[in-house]
Amino acid sequence: MDWYYEPYKEITAVGIRIEGLVHAERSAYQEIKVYDTVGHGRLLTLDGMVMLTELDEFVYHDLITHLPLCIHADPRRVLVIGGGDGGSVREILKHPSVEQVVLCELDERVTRVCQRYIPSVAGHLEDPRVALNFADGVEFVRAHEAAFDVIVVDSSEPEGPAAGLFRRAFFADLRRALRPGGVIAAQTESPFYSAATVRDVYNELRSVFREVHPCFGPVPTYPGGTWTWALASDTRTPAMLDRARAAALRCRYFNLDIAAGAFALPNFIRELVDPAPAR
Amino acid sequence: MDWYYEPYKEITAVGIRIEGLVHAERSAYQEIKVYDTVGHGRLLTLDGMVMLTELDEFVYHDLITHLPLCIHADPRRVLVIGGGDGGSVREILKHPSVEQVVLCELDERVTRVCQRYIPSVAGHLEDPRVALNFADGVEFVRAHEAAFDVIVVDSSEPEGPAAGLFRRAFFADLRRALRPGGVIAAQTESPFYSAATVRDVYNELRSVFREVHPCFGPVPTYPGGTWTWALASDTRTPAMLDRARAAALRCRYFNLDIAAGAFALPNFIRELVDPAPAR
Repeated sequence: MDWYYEPYKEITAVGIRIEGLVHAERSAYQEIKVYDTVGHGRLLTLDGMVMLTELDEFVYHDLITHLPLCIHADPRRVLVIGGGDGGSVREILKHPSVEQVVLCELDERVTRVCQRYIPSVAGHLEDPRVALNFADGVEFVRAHEAAFDVIVVDSSEPEGPAAGLFRRAFFADLRRALRPGGVIAAQTESPFYSAATVRDVYNELRSVFREVHPCFGPVPTYPGGTWTWALASDTRTPAMLDRARAAALRCRYFNLDIAAGAFALPNFIRELVDPAPAR
Repeated sequence: MDWYYEPYKEITAVGIRIEGLVHAERSAYQEIKVYDTVGHGRLLTLDGMVMLTELDEFVYHDLITHLPLCIHADPRRVLVIGGGDGGSVREILKHPSVEQVVLCELDERVTRVCQRYIPSVAGHLEDPRVALNFADGVEFVRAHEAAFDVIVVDSSEPEGPAAGLFRRAFFADLRRALRPGGVIAAQTESPFYSAATVRDVYNELRSVFREVHPCFGPVPTYPGGTWTWALASDTRTPAMLDRARAAALRCRYFNLDIAAGAFALPNFIRELVDPAPAR
């Protein structure tokens, strides 16, 4: 037995007790590893960064999917950028209105490894409503116009292969790829340890979308243990959430209270994400 | 430079990059250490467990003080059990109605070390409204009846010197030490890694108080990064929060949105803290 440690910016580290390495490979894009752990179920890392553990992945996947889908009036076509582990797809498929979920993951090996070794997360990718695309998310979005009701940007950190997914040009392409009434959700990093990144991302989002609403929640195996996500749209706001559809979902994190409470921001996060005051 | 690691139940670990040891001593009760860190300001540990860092202590101290004080109709006399670092006292003193804060800390050395090395947290203990008592919290509470409007149980983990602060007999003594209309707040551990403890504590609290309301929030340097606290009373509920008093506070975490949002519990926490269903 040993410890897996992910140091973050030489400030903090997440430690997870592991029982053994289940799988390791270097794909064309990154190093993929799956571990068995003592208290976290299976652990997936990419280039030494925790992507998910079976203990806590439900928080991230609940917030990044059920919020935009319940805020949208009638989500039928949904795109997931990244999210090769299949956790976002699993949650999106709980919504009866959804006719198709397109997954656009850069690295096919991530998906294949998760299908084989983490079926609790990836086990819904063979659903007939799911279309798998192994392609660059930036290019895929650029090639689509008015094609999706909801787009979920389920990306890794802005360092590395996902850097392009945090820039204004990408957000503008997302907006163009949405049908009228469309909503996006994106992960937007740690408010404790990545304050500058959080501030930048919200400035970029606000320069593209009329409505930008940050929310937050716990992810114990990510640096700082608390994460932020953005909901963005030109027409839809969290206040428009369909309470009947939200109440019908069976989730480990999301419920009607969370649908409001996740947007109740503490002052130190407000300072990062609120629009800059006019000078 | 080195890393400070706190393993927790051989499942998870919190890592904090340290620049040096500022102070170390063994008191009559425990080993007290203060470190300088790279990104967390000063770090206080007791018996190798993180008690606070200057980066994130505001979350814990805001939630454990401003919620009960704003829920109480007119808090004048406040007791803090534990809390030798002075952070809870600092926040309680922000409330103009408070005439006296009694701090009952078992280990005087914790307070003296914090006054010397972490003045950003302990710097308000010389306020004339503060009365310091270095005594056992269980005995101190037992010796008081109808004496306090709010009692804050700002304790360390249930293993070690603070074990008695998580038991039914202590909660019954707390209830007797409250004046009519009184409210208590207590830290109630990690919902991710101490599920059984959380469940036990809420069962005990519900067997003593008519109103028991759990809330949660982020503490990145505690195991799991998310913590729970209980508000308990016979007469007061979070819905009775004084919005004008809450809005007048200047805090880094607490605000009117949080006063509601902190009680919006995800399903996996509800399952731990809700009353057991009748059979």
